[in-house]
Amino acid sequence: MSQLYTYKMPTELFFGRGAAMHTAEKVRELGSDNVVIVTDQGVYASGVLKTIEESLQAGNVTYSIYHDVEPEPTYKGVDEAVKLLKETKATAVIGVGGGSSMDTAKNVAVMGTNEGKIFDYLGFGNIKNKPLPIIAVPTTAGTGSEVTFWAVVGDKEKDIKASVGGWEIMPDTAILDPELTLSVPSHVTAATGMDAFCHAMESYVSKATQPVSEGLSYHAMRLIAGALRKAATRGDDIDAREDMLMGSLIAALAFNVGKLGLSHAFAMPLGAKYKIPHGMVNAIMLPWVMEYNLPAATEKYIEVAKLLGEHVEGLSPMEAAAKSVEAVKRLNADIGITQGLKDWGVKEEELLEIAQKAYQSGNIYSNPRSSRVEDLVEIAKKAMKGLR
Amino acid sequence: MSQLYTYKMPTELFFGRGAAMHTAEKVRELGSDNVVIVTDQGVYASGVLKTIEESLQAGNVTYSIYHDVEPEPTYKGVDEAVKLLKETKATAVIGVGGGSSMDTAKNVAVMGTNEGKIFDYLGFGNIKNKPLPIIAVPTTAGTGSEVTFWAVVGDKEKDIKASVGGWEIMPDTAILDPELTLSVPSHVTAATGMDAFCHAMESYVSKATQPVSEGLSYHAMRLIAGALRKAATRGDDIDAREDMLMGSLIAALAFNVGKLGLSHAFAMPLGAKYKIPHGMVNAIMLPWVMEYNLPAATEKYIEVAKLLGEHVEGLSPMEAAAKSVEAVKRLNADIGITQGLKDWGVKEEELLEIAQKAYQSGNIYSNPRSSRVEDLVEIAKKAMKGLR
Repeated sequence: MSQLYTYKMPTELFFGRGAAMHTAEKVRELGSDNVVIVTDQGVYASGVLKTIEESLQAGNVTYSIYHDVEPEPTYKGVDEAVKLLKETKATAVIGVGGGSSMDTAKNVAVMGTNEGKIFDYLGFGNIKNKPLPIIAVPTTAGTGSEVTFWAVVGDKEKDIKASVGGWEIMPDTAILDPELTLSVPSHVTAATGMDAFCHAMESYVSKATQPVSEGLSYHAMRLIAGALRKAATRGDDIDAREDMLMGSLIAALAFNVGKLGLSHAFAMPLGAKYKIPHGMVNAIMLPWVMEYNLPAATEKYIEVAKLLGEHVEGLSPMEAAAKSVEAVKRLNADIGITQGLKDWGVKEEELLEIAQKAYQSGNIYSNPRSSRVEDLVEIAKKAMKGLR
Repeated sequence: MSQLYTYKMPTELFFGRGAAMHTAEKVRELGSDNVVIVTDQGVYASGVLKTIEESLQAGNVTYSIYHDVEPEPTYKGVDEAVKLLKETKATAVIGVGGGSSMDTAKNVAVMGTNEGKIFDYLGFGNIKNKPLPIIAVPTTAGTGSEVTFWAVVGDKEKDIKASVGGWEIMPDTAILDPELTLSVPSHVTAATGMDAFCHAMESYVSKATQPVSEGLSYHAMRLIAGALRKAATRGDDIDAREDMLMGSLIAALAFNVGKLGLSHAFAMPLGAKYKIPHGMVNAIMLPWVMEYNLPAATEKYIEVAKLLGEHVEGLSPMEAAAKSVEAVKRLNADIGITQGLKDWGVKEEELLEIAQKAYQSGNIYSNPRSSRVEDLVEIAKKAMKGLR
């Protein structure tokens, strides 16, 4: 290493079973007694808010609920929730749910103190006034948005999926309660879990990895590899749920500074146009991206193979590294992810355009192997047919 | 896990070779243009301050230097440096050196904004006013004080070694530049390195470990185990120096919340009365503490053994775990630490008093195995003769 790095993690993490019962305390620690909860219909219907609402009521914190965040969140959800925020004179925002809800909550906090519209603040570091306090409560073990400085926001009519970024939107507090994740259905657990695993692995092999983030990436891979099969196939296993939630968190602590790779570069175009869930894109792309990257980060992939339980003794370095690819394919298959891009309606003749769009991602530069658009087309071709 | 945990790490980490050349920028980011540098005579004489001074001069930051911090820092150093701070109207404090200098800098920052004397603020959470901004620049890979919320302060006449603690004295910025550690002599590198290793291991097996800290502990052990022999035996190896500095940092990120164990419980009484350097106490005690702890954290010690390169296939769990003790003894011996407590003037008949004092440490409760004073006496007895 001869570069200079900065690591900063201003979010206070509060975690453990039952942590959500302390939501009111955490709101008051941030100087607020009136909040807007931002969530989606699925979370709202699931009953997951009960613990949080009980805590707020017991703690005399006034609250209102916006529960119409879309799966691919747009400016519409931000605008509607901001309207509720202004009407109720709320002074803090709680995002409860997956990445969509937490990201929307961040954007609502920005628009609580800034003029204009959310699209005025796209990119990194363009937020003018300090946003309202933000509490993030993940209900899936996946995006890690509770500790990242990005917030996705889209425009469906215009086919736009973009992001607002800045240290100001790192949540002030993340409340991680594995009991809130018990009711997540198997296929969502699988896809979001592979998103988290992909965060851990892509940040581990990233060109921008740092000693601090590298240790976090490695530990996140260990936690997720040890728990994802169980969490996806018997969702009531609270130990597995807890390891997944911690793995997802720790992976995000790493990738927030350590950056990601080609799988995530594909996530934007495939999510925006084909509506493939973010985690699913990463699950589908990861093995083929790994295979492509092997020569550029062989030693790292050998570590991954070992961590995934592969025996690598007596193998050449490339053979040993390749074991990591097989292990990830088996992990995908074991949790029911056998689809390819074709199953999501992607056509061979569209791959060039997808690759061109993916190539605009910042994750192209942190991916360990230097790539061209043509390479991305080849990787996507392999990902067309899936694992069956 | 069924407890609730908080993880918070407000310090901004800035690291890499040449990081110290950016000291002035970091001072200005904290809103200051006039600082007191707090350091000891050894660091002052070594020329290590040169980079920092050049940066401050180039950045038009006014500075004065207090360079009389004692190896076991006392209130005297704090008082003298505070006097300089008030005379120069400095608005931030930079601690440059090992734990003594960084801890004194923290206490100086406290006394820059608080009335009375530093002993009024002993214990955790008793600081009234927000201290002045603190920048910590470690020149040994050891204490990790750059990211902890404790600051040791003693009184030699009264044989007191106590601590001021609180989130307020987490440094605002830690500058980690491995080039500043190149001139540390071998025996200091060995002892401070074992201190860092002990932080990593004791926090890894601690009852208070958390998922985040556990991953950090593990990574710190890997970095230190891979670099300490080289750093201690050929000090000009910048890669080894860098891994040590990162390992020390990352271990402290872990133990600041994950707590420590019996080795560190012994550090206070053996440091205060016999003047055994802090790292040396830990190096001497660690193998015997591990041996004592094996039944209480067997699986964890097996992980440690594997991480240290031991072959554990075919062994019973306790045999496999015991390999970690042998590995740490060999590490000690390889870097020249073969002394026992006897070599430092400790007498058999004093062990009970030492054990009684050690038993007052908070680290007794986080140590994985429950202990009595008699157990500590037995452990210390084994540590009397050393490894020769």
